[in-house]
Amino acid sequence: MIDHTLLAPEATPHDVEALIAEASELGVYSVCVSPSMLPVRADGLVVAAVAGFPSGKHHRDIKAAEAKLAVSQGAGEIDMVIDVGAAVAGDFDAVAREIAAVREAMGVGPVLKVILETAALTDDAIVACCVAAEGAGADFVKTSTGFHPAGGASTHAVSLMAEAVGGRIGVKASGGIRSAQSALDMIAAGATRLGLSRSRAILDDLSD
Amino acid sequence: MIDHTLLAPEATPHDVEALIAEASELGVYSVCVSPSMLPVRADGLVVAAVAGFPSGKHHRDIKAAEAKLAVSQGAGEIDMVIDVGAAVAGDFDAVAREIAAVREAMGVGPVLKVILETAALTDDAIVACCVAAEGAGADFVKTSTGFHPAGGASTHAVSLMAEAVGGRIGVKASGGIRSAQSALDMIAAGATRLGLSRSRAILDDLSD
Repeated sequence: MIDHTLLAPEATPHDVEALIAEASELGVYSVCVSPSMLPVRADGLVVAAVAGFPSGKHHRDIKAAEAKLAVSQGAGEIDMVIDVGAAVAGDFDAVAREIAAVREAMGVGPVLKVILETAALTDDAIVACCVAAEGAGADFVKTSTGFHPAGGASTHAVSLMAEAVGGRIGVKASGGIRSAQSALDMIAAGATRLGLSRSRAILDDLSD
Repeated sequence: MIDHTLLAPEATPHDVEALIAEASELGVYSVCVSPSMLPVRADGLVVAAVAGFPSGKHHRDIKAAEAKLAVSQGAGEIDMVIDVGAAVAGDFDAVAREIAAVREAMGVGPVLKVILETAALTDDAIVACCVAAEGAGADFVKTSTGFHPAGGASTHAVSLMAEAVGGRIGVKASGGIRSAQSALDMIAAGATRLGLSRSRAILDDLSD
């Protein structure tokens, strides 16, 4: 269930190699990296790359081109950020259009996760974005980039999202999940995937 | 000297209209906005858009495509973010290549500013990035995105950058400049452009 994640601006190729080695050792599902780090060698691991990250304020054609390039460089999953401002303004058609543009550029096969930045949205906007994401062909809705000052995942947001998508697509909780208890709380709330940078510490805690 | 700036993920079209109205009223040089907000109506103001913002961890071809699209949508200036991790790793050739790719995509005419995220770099790396930026055809080096947890502009970084470029290209100070005194300190250190979100309060202070 774990996407072992390193998205800091200052991450180096060496840091990404260390992330992948740790991911292999821990036996997690995937590594999630920035698109400028692709291609990477990650035998036996799925590689996820972000698009329009972390602001989401990129033109939809650019997000689509970024996702397409990342897939061509080996990414099996794309975590895209919506234009949060469009959702704040209630323009969920614009949100749906950009998700559809990325889906079309990626083609069938790769997994598309849609980051809503839930800490910056109202409950109604979160639900409307889930509807838009499912309708536009997303495979997951995802809470947070982990870089927004308003915060990361909350069990409240995960519950809302899980209810909205009703098990038809996945729910990824990410951003600020720093303890085993927090990870378990997210799963109890309905998360089917977790984005973690502290995977080792959390898995160590769980095995105690 | 002022780029009146709004780059928050949750900024709406209405917020950008308000920014432009305020910029016109204040008589600043430009507005700096996210590329997803283009095109905008901003009579008499230069429009600057960011590229690869704020992480800088986008493939150079994507940054170049984003800059080209923004210019086609009316941006007269592009503020691009370098791959900070490449600079941390000492790979200044990679930094130069991405700047050159954006410069080439933009063509001659539009102004290119290169954001180094100085709070995440050593002094030596800041100087090496300035050399790379000047060599690759940048018109400005710029301190910060304003979104990095390590902080924004410092007079120390501005001084280093001003010395490195020796007046041949500009120096933009941005990120966390919240008072008139801070703005004046940046200019004294060598800044030739300021990125401000609190332009009105700072200009009000200066006119007192």
